[in-house]
Amino acid sequence: MKKKLQGVLPPVATPFTADEELDIKAFKANLQRWNQTGLSGYLVVGSNGESVYLSEYERDQVLAASKEAVAPDKIIMAGTGAESTRATIQQTRRAGELGSDCALVITPHYFKGQMTPARLMDHYRKVADAAPIPVLVYNFPQSTGLNLPAEAVAQIAEHPNVVGIKDSSGNIAQLSELLRLCPKDFAVFVGNAAVFFPALCLGAVGGILAAANAVPERFVELMQAHQAGEMAKAKDLQWRLVSLAVLVTVTHGVGGLKAAMEMTGYQPGVVRSPLTMPDDKARAVIQKELTALGY
Amino acid sequence: MKKKLQGVLPPVATPFTADEELDIKAFKANLQRWNQTGLSGYLVVGSNGESVYLSEYERDQVLAASKEAVAPDKIIMAGTGAESTRATIQQTRRAGELGSDCALVITPHYFKGQMTPARLMDHYRKVADAAPIPVLVYNFPQSTGLNLPAEAVAQIAEHPNVVGIKDSSGNIAQLSELLRLCPKDFAVFVGNAAVFFPALCLGAVGGILAAANAVPERFVELMQAHQAGEMAKAKDLQWRLVSLAVLVTVTHGVGGLKAAMEMTGYQPGVVRSPLTMPDDKARAVIQKELTALGY
Amino acid sequence: MKKKLQGVLPPVATPFTADEELDIKAFKANLQRWNQTGLSGYLVVGSNGESVYLSEYERDQVLAASKEAVAPDKIIMAGTGAESTRATIQQTRRAGELGSDCALVITPHYFKGQMTPARLMDHYRKVADAAPIPVLVYNFPQSTGLNLPAEAVAQIAEHPNVVGIKDSSGNIAQLSELLRLCPKDFAVFVGNAAVFFPALCLGAVGGILAAANAVPERFVELMQAHQAGEMAKAKDLQWRLVSLAVLVTVTHGVGGLKAAMEMTGYQPGVVRSPLTMPDDKARAVIQKELTALGY
Amino acid sequence: MKKKLQGVLPPVATPFTADEELDIKAFKANLQRWNQTGLSGYLVVGSNGESVYLSEYERDQVLAASKEAVAPDKIIMAGTGAESTRATIQQTRRAGELGSDCALVITPHYFKGQMTPARLMDHYRKVADAAPIPVLVYNFPQSTGLNLPAEAVAQIAEHPNVVGIKDSSGNIAQLSELLRLCPKDFAVFVGNAAVFFPALCLGAVGGILAAANAVPERFVELMQAHQAGEMAKAKDLQWRLVSLAVLVTVTHGVGGLKAAMEMTGYQPGVVRSPLTMPDDKARAVIQKELTALGY
Repeated sequence: MKKKLQGVLPPVATPFTADEELDIKAFKANLQRWNQTGLSGYLVVGSNGESVYLSEYERDQVLAASKEAVAPDKIIMAGTGAESTRATIQQTRRAGELGSDCALVITPHYFKGQMTPARLMDHYRKVADAAPIPVLVYNFPQSTGLNLPAEAVAQIAEHPNVVGIKDSSGNIAQLSELLRLCPKDFAVFVGNAAVFFPALCLGAVGGILAAANAVPERFVELMQAHQAGEMAKAKDLQWRLVSLAVLVTVTHGVGGLKAAMEMTGYQPGVVRSPLTMPDDKARAVIQKELTALGY
Repeated sequence: MKKKLQGVLPPVATPFTADEELDIKAFKANLQRWNQTGLSGYLVVGSNGESVYLSEYERDQVLAASKEAVAPDKIIMAGTGAESTRATIQQTRRAGELGSDCALVITPHYFKGQMTPARLMDHYRKVADAAPIPVLVYNFPQSTGLNLPAEAVAQIAEHPNVVGIKDSSGNIAQLSELLRLCPKDFAVFVGNAAVFFPALCLGAVGGILAAANAVPERFVELMQAHQAGEMAKAKDLQWRLVSLAVLVTVTHGVGGLKAAMEMTGYQPGVVRSPLTMPDDKARAVIQKELTALGY
Repeated sequence: MKKKLQGVLPPVATPFTADEELDIKAFKANLQRWNQTGLSGYLVVGSNGESVYLSEYERDQVLAASKEAVAPDKIIMAGTGAESTRATIQQTRRAGELGSDCALVITPHYFKGQMTPARLMDHYRKVADAAPIPVLVYNFPQSTGLNLPAEAVAQIAEHPNVVGIKDSSGNIAQLSELLRLCPKDFAVFVGNAAVFFPALCLGAVGGILAAANAVPERFVELMQAHQAGEMAKAKDLQWRLVSLAVLVTVTHGVGGLKAAMEMTGYQPGVVRSPLTMPDDKARAVIQKELTALGY
Repeated sequence: MKKKLQGVLPPVATPFTADEELDIKAFKANLQRWNQTGLSGYLVVGSNGESVYLSEYERDQVLAASKEAVAPDKIIMAGTGAESTRATIQQTRRAGELGSDCALVITPHYFKGQMTPARLMDHYRKVADAAPIPVLVYNFPQSTGLNLPAEAVAQIAEHPNVVGIKDSSGNIAQLSELLRLCPKDFAVFVGNAAVFFPALCLGAVGGILAAANAVPERFVELMQAHQAGEMAKAKDLQWRLVSLAVLVTVTHGVGGLKAAMEMTGYQPGVVRSPLTMPDDKARAVIQKELTALGY
C-alpha cells in the first residue's frame, strides 16, 4: 500500500438508530467530520465498531460507505478476522474488493486451548497468502483470552504481506520485545490509550485508540508533540487523556464511547443489546472529563 | 417440550471432508448409529460441532439433517447463542422452525468486561421471551472467559421458558450452588466429563459430554450405575473415563475427538483450519485409552 | 503412624486475646470440647491457625499445647511448610519433637515462577527424607497462586514417608486424577467444604475443613452418612453446609470463622491485624446459617 | 530522610556459600564495588535478597553489614514487610535501629481474598505511624497475587511518613494513574526493568531493578540519558537491556541473577533450596547477553 501506516486511527464506532438498525448516513457524516482532523485514517468493522453484532450484509455496507466517505489521503483498515481460516480469507478478500487499504486480523480464539503459536502462525500465513491487501495482526488478550507472544509475531512478520500489528494488551514490556524483534518497517500500533505515549517513546508508529472517536484532536496533538520532541507536553497530554480513555473502554465500553461521541458532536446512535448506553450519572462523569480536555 | 431433559447427550461433532467441506451424509450416518444407544439426544451446532466455523447456510443444513435422522424419542438441542441479542433470537427461531426441541444459548462474551450479570439476565429474558422453543443457559468460562454466577442463573431460571443449564465450568462448588438455588425441575447438565459422577451425586440430571461422541456406551453405563445406586461401579467408570475425556477436549480439542470417533467406527472427517488433527503419536495415546475402555 | 488418616479434621483456629496475644488456655479449652465429637483429629498451626502471623516461639507453644490437650485416639497434624527447604525441615523436626503425629507441608510459593514441578518434587523428597514423622503435601492454589499437578503429586507419593495430601483447590477433576494416579493407601483429604461430599464419592478419605471448627457435628454426620451409603442424606447435608462454609472462608475469612466459633460456644478470640473481625451485619448472616444447621 | 529518593537501586542479592550459609564477607565486598558506580543506593533483604529464606538473626546481620559497607551518599532501603501488622512494625523498627534510611513494605498477601484495599490502607497507616524511618509501599502482583490499586496508593500517600512506592507490576497504565493521583514529591520507583524507560518518560523517579546487581553501569547510563533528553540513546539502551532483565528474573529467577553477577565479577554465591542455579546451557545464554551489553 502507498499510504504510510502511522499516526492516530480511531476504531470507528458503528452508528445504530434507536431501534438498533444500522445508520449508514450517520456513519458517513462522522467520517466527513473526522476528515477535517489530523487523523491518519480509520479502522472500520473492528471491535469498537461492534463487528461481532453485524451481519455479513451490514459489514459490506459499512465497508462500502467508508470507501465513499474517506478523504483520499487517509487509510481504510478493515477488521476481517473470523474464527476459521476460510472465513477470514473470505472477509479479507471482500474488504479488498470494497476498497479497503489493509486488513486487521484478530487472533481466532474460541478454541483458545488449541490456539498454539504454531497454529496461529499457520493461520496468519494462509490468510496473508490469500489476501489481496496487506494484513496486520491484532492481539487483544483482554477480549480473546489469548496472547500472541512477541516471538510468534516476529515470525509472522517475515511474510511479505504482513505489514504490522495492533497490540491492545497494554503490556509495554511485550511491546518493547515486539519492536526489538520485528523488522524496522513493521508497523507497530498500540491499541490502548493508557500506554500511548510510552509506546511512542519506545518506537511505536501510532495508535488505534477508541477514545480518538470522540477527541481526535488531543491524540493527534500528543502524537505531534512526541514527534517534535516536546516530551513534557506529550506527558501532560497522556496524563490528561487516561481517565477519559478508561471511561470509554474498560468502565463503560462502547456505550460509554458512543455517549462521549455524542457530547463532542458526532452521531453515534446507540449500541446493540446486550450492550447498553450509560446512565445519567455515568454520562456526567464522561462530560466532566471532556470538559477538562477542552471540549 | 414433552421429552424429558436428562441423561447423556453428545455435543455432536460436525463432519468435514478432506477439503473442509460440510459432510451431511456422514453427519446423518453418525446419528443413525447413535440412535441405537442409550443416549438421550444430541446437542447440534454447539461448540464441539465447530459452530463458530459454520456459515448460516451450513447451520441450517445441520439442523435440518439432525431432525431427519434423529430417533423419535431422542432430543435435538440446538446451539443458538450469538453475540447480539437480535442474532441469538434469530438463530433460536430458526432452530425452532427446523424442528429442534430446545436451544442452548451460550453467554455472549466478546465484550466480556461489559457482560455484567444484569446485562446477561436481560439478554436471556429477551431471548426466552422471543423463543418458540425452551431455552437452556450455557456457561463455559474456559472458552468465553466469563462466568455466570449461580445467583444470576437462579434468577434467569424463574423465566417459564428457561428450562435448564449446561455448566461446563467443572466447578463443582458452583454446581452445588446452582442445584441449591434453582427450582427442582430446572435441568442442570454438566458439560465436563471429569466431574460427571460427582455432579450426578449432587443432583445433576445428566451430562452433555464431548467424549460421548466416541464412547457413548460407557457414559450411559455410568449414568445407569448411578441411578441404580451402584456407587462403586459408577466411581470406577468415572476414574476410567477421565483420561480419554481430557485427551479429546483440553489436550487435543475437537481434532482429538474426531480422531477418537474414527477409531470407534464413526465418520467424523477432519477439523477446519486453524484447528488441526492430532499426529500419530497423539493418536496412539488416544487409541490406548479407547482399548482400556473396551473399544 | 498408627492412627488412621481419615475422617474430618478442623484446621484449628488459633485464639488471640483482645490485644492480639496468643491465648493458649482458650486453645486447649477448644480442643477439650472437640475431643467429645467424632472428629478424627486436628490440623494445628495451619493456614486457618493464622500460622503466618505466629512467631517461632508461639508456634512451639501451640504445638506443645495441642499434644497436651488432644484425646489419645485423635491425630495431631502440624503445618510445617516454609519457603526454604531448610526452614521446612527445621519446623518439621520441631513438630516431631513436640509430639505431632504428622506434618502438612504447603508448597513453597513466593518465587512462584521458579517453583516448577521438578523443584517442588525435590523439595518434598528432601523434607520427607529428613522428617521424623510422616509428611502430607498441601496444595492450596487460591492462596499460593501455584498448583501442584496430579502427576507431580503421584511421583512424590512414591516416597515412603509421604503419606497423603490435603487438596484445597476445589478442583474435583484434579482430585479425581490424584485418586487415580496415587497408591491406594495414599490419604487424599479435601480442603474445601464446598466439594466435600463429591470428593468422598470419588474416594477421598476425609476432609480438613475450616467450618468444622464451628460445626464439627454436621461434617461428621455427612461423613458417616456417606460411609453408610445414605446418599440422599449426605447430599442434603452437603447442600446445607455450603453457605456457611463459604461465609467462613471466602467471604469473611478467618474473622468469619472465629465469629461462627464464638456463636457455637468455642473460644476463638480475635484475629490478628491486618485481618479484621466481621461487623454486625455479617455476623447476623453467619448466625442465620448456623441456626439453619441446628445450632 | 535527607538523601534524595531517585535513581537506580539494585535489590541486592544475598550471597550464600556452597552449603547455603550466609556469606556476609561476600555481601560487603559486593557493596564496596557498587559504591564505585552511579547507583543511588541499595534495597537489602528484599525479594531478590531471598528474604523469605532468611532467619531473623540473618536479617539482622545483613542489615548491619549494609550499614557498615555503604558509601555515605547512598541509600539503604530495607525490605521489612511481613504478613501481620505487628511483625511488620517490629521488622521496620529493627531496620531503623540498624541504620537503614527507609523501609520497603510489601503488601501482606497470604490471605489474599481478605486483603481488601481498606484493610491494606489500615495496615500501611499503622506501620507508618509506628515506623522510626520513612516507609515505601511495595506492589508486586506477580509474586503476591494481589494488586494494590492506584486509588488506594494515593490515599496511603497522604500519610506524612509514607514517601514512595516500588511498583513491580509492569503495568504502565497503572503507573500512569499512580503518577497522576499521588503528590508530586511521592517517589514512584518502577520495579520491572522491561518498562524502565517508559516509566521514566511518564515521570517515575527511578528503578529498583534486579539486573542492576549485575550491570549497574548500563542502567545508570539509561537514567542519565533520559535526564539529558537523549531519547534515542535511552530507547536503545532499553531495547538492549530487556533480554538480560527477563533472563535474570522471569526465566531463571534469583539463580539466573546470581549467575550473571558472577560473570560480571561480583560474589553472589548460590541460592537456597528449593531454588537452583541455572545449568550450563542457561549460563551460556546469559553470558551472551552480558557480552552484547559490553561486559
